[in-house]
Amino acid sequence: MYPRLPDGDTRVTQAAVDRFFMKRALRLAAKGVGTTHPNPMVGAVLVSGGSVIGEGWHELPGKPHAEVLSIDQAGRRAAGATMYVNLEPCSHYGRTPPCTDRIIQAGISRLVAGCRDPNPDVNGKGFETLERAGIEVSEGLLDEEARELNRAFFHYVANGIPYVTLKTAMSLDGRIATSSGESRWITGKGSRRAAHRLRSNADAVLVGVGTVLVDNPELTVRAVRSKVLPWRIILDPSLRTPLTSRVVVRGEDGKTIIVVDERIAEKRAKAFTDVGTRLMMLPTEGGLFSWPSLGKRLVGEGIIHLMVEGGGKTAAWFVGEGAVCRIEAFVAPVMIGSEGVAAMGPLALEALGDAARFDVVRCRRVGGDVRITADRCL
Amino acid sequence: MYPRLPDGDTRVTQAAVDRFFMKRALRLAAKGVGTTHPNPMVGAVLVSGGSVIGEGWHELPGKPHAEVLSIDQAGRRAAGATMYVNLEPCSHYGRTPPCTDRIIQAGISRLVAGCRDPNPDVNGKGFETLERAGIEVSEGLLDEEARELNRAFFHYVANGIPYVTLKTAMSLDGRIATSSGESRWITGKGSRRAAHRLRSNADAVLVGVGTVLVDNPELTVRAVRSKVLPWRIILDPSLRTPLTSRVVVRGEDGKTIIVVDERIAEKRAKAFTDVGTRLMMLPTEGGLFSWPSLGKRLVGEGIIHLMVEGGGKTAAWFVGEGAVCRIEAFVAPVMIGSEGVAAMGPLALEALGDAARFDVVRCRRVGGDVRITADRCL
Repeated sequence: MYPRLPDGDTRVTQAAVDRFFMKRALRLAAKGVGTTHPNPMVGAVLVSGGSVIGEGWHELPGKPHAEVLSIDQAGRRAAGATMYVNLEPCSHYGRTPPCTDRIIQAGISRLVAGCRDPNPDVNGKGFETLERAGIEVSEGLLDEEARELNRAFFHYVANGIPYVTLKTAMSLDGRIATSSGESRWITGKGSRRAAHRLRSNADAVLVGVGTVLVDNPELTVRAVRSKVLPWRIILDPSLRTPLTSRVVVRGEDGKTIIVVDERIAEKRAKAFTDVGTRLMMLPTEGGLFSWPSLGKRLVGEGIIHLMVEGGGKTAAWFVGEGAVCRIEAFVAPVMIGSEGVAAMGPLALEALGDAARFDVVRCRRVGGDVRITADRCL
Repeated sequence: MYPRLPDGDTRVTQAAVDRFFMKRALRLAAKGVGTTHPNPMVGAVLVSGGSVIGEGWHELPGKPHAEVLSIDQAGRRAAGATMYVNLEPCSHYGRTPPCTDRIIQAGISRLVAGCRDPNPDVNGKGFETLERAGIEVSEGLLDEEARELNRAFFHYVANGIPYVTLKTAMSLDGRIATSSGESRWITGKGSRRAAHRLRSNADAVLVGVGTVLVDNPELTVRAVRSKVLPWRIILDPSLRTPLTSRVVVRGEDGKTIIVVDERIAEKRAKAFTDVGTRLMMLPTEGGLFSWPSLGKRLVGEGIIHLMVEGGGKTAAWFVGEGAVCRIEAFVAPVMIGSEGVAAMGPLALEALGDAARFDVVRCRRVGGDVRITADRCL
């Protein structure tokens, strides 16, 4: 319950103490990964006299906010305490009353916050309300970590469409399968485990129908624990997904969505809905959906973090639409050769300068592979 | 001149002292990079009473060995001193007399060595000779670093063919150019600089004639200082290299070699030799050379570290021949799409299990790119 200060830290400054408890708030917030959407992940720590007197994290939409939980836990001791929270407390009525009210009522004397809530209903108003009530507010501690944690939420608030992570597992020469379609396993166990962890943190996992036809994947989370199963989504304009495919058969939990052209025959559609698979009808142009309209529909389902897993044509469509926010590339040090299946389909580039550029965020070894994380250049 | 011990090191053990001076010997040895071939890079440090009394490194074949230089520098003070050297001292007559004789004559009392000389004429005999003369010998200190430094030499001694580094600069989806051939610049300035550094450390830089026709490269070392210019080699069975291409025009230094089918007409060949370009005649089968015969011919020219720069067909040929010892992949976080030129040409894989596998040695960020270094799995 009571956290220790970093070992060997003899000169404890207020800044070091603040960082320490903010890190704890971030760790608490991260417990909500995959379950808070479309809400952000928030953790709060209440500290009095150097000790934690209350903690909380937001778990599910509609459930209490982290700030309120920490105050409930502290009870009367909250008066005069310092609150650490990774995101600006809300100042508006949502499904729950404003957190700022509870913070003021509890008599908190100091608030240390990570980043601002980009939601225009809040965005600085939370801080203002607290300051007007005489609370000392420090903003922007571990701001970068706070933004990284809620990057999907931030993107969704700003754009109204899901944050898209493109995950690819490929050879060093950019191939996801041999010419005969063999793809198990190019990357190693560590990479596959990390990929399942990524799935468990997303609201939905998406592949194109080509991948369903070739690999017949389950698109479930395995190898890691997961509280909420992500949606399984197939992009399949002309409904070529077999009724016997694993995503359909395992889709009896109602979490499989096939995105089809809205002109698909009702009878064919019914065969799928009968077995619990949802069809999402969308217009196409030239056989292709439009990302803004698909994105909005997905947001309507509460999907604000979408993980795209391929194949090459689907990956290229998302890159071409400018939809990819982050790439997670698992690269195996193996050469497959140009007959292999390309990780990235055609992009119809006119010139090199038009290529989709990303910024490397991290580059790490995972087992025998290399994992490259890169964000779209803005 | 006199090295300081690591800062803050209060308990100086003999092992720490040994590591310190061995690191110095390795740094001295590395000064010979690119110039000692076909000899190994060797550095030697003579230490007496905790101070350096002599140092040396091998610079060029035929020039004095590192051990001898350090003894010459120390003079009479060498008696009773400890010698640190990254490679086993030679015990045979080459272009210079055996180093073991000089070490014994000088009265050195202790030798700390990195790794054994794989040359069958030495291979442990150097150590034996010294021990028989009453010198205390420690073998294997920083063995891994010592092997890494002279990996090309070790490979050449063991196999009689050059050590091959395959360098590639590509997009995250494994492309080295757009469909229109645009390749400048996929990777950034830092990667290009590192690639020139790699060139300067190799004995020769090789590309296929396709790259000459498309890119017309100079294949010189730029952006970094280099003592010896590496050979420029073009694989070009049917001699399609234009007489006006940069490698030929700049080849007046006599360091351009075009490897051609031995059946090429004498008259055509003469046009190239007239302007200072060498032709290396080799038999082909199905339009392809054989790596063992090419490798032996290159070794005959003193080329024991060959850097292959592509394009895709040439890279695939080297991978297919099992010739690639190390891959240096510079990966730019950009997507070019499947219409782009593949970094790796066809490999005619039957199954994924037959793919050429490598072990990641390092994975680093270089500017905005990622550099992956991987060695062939043995």
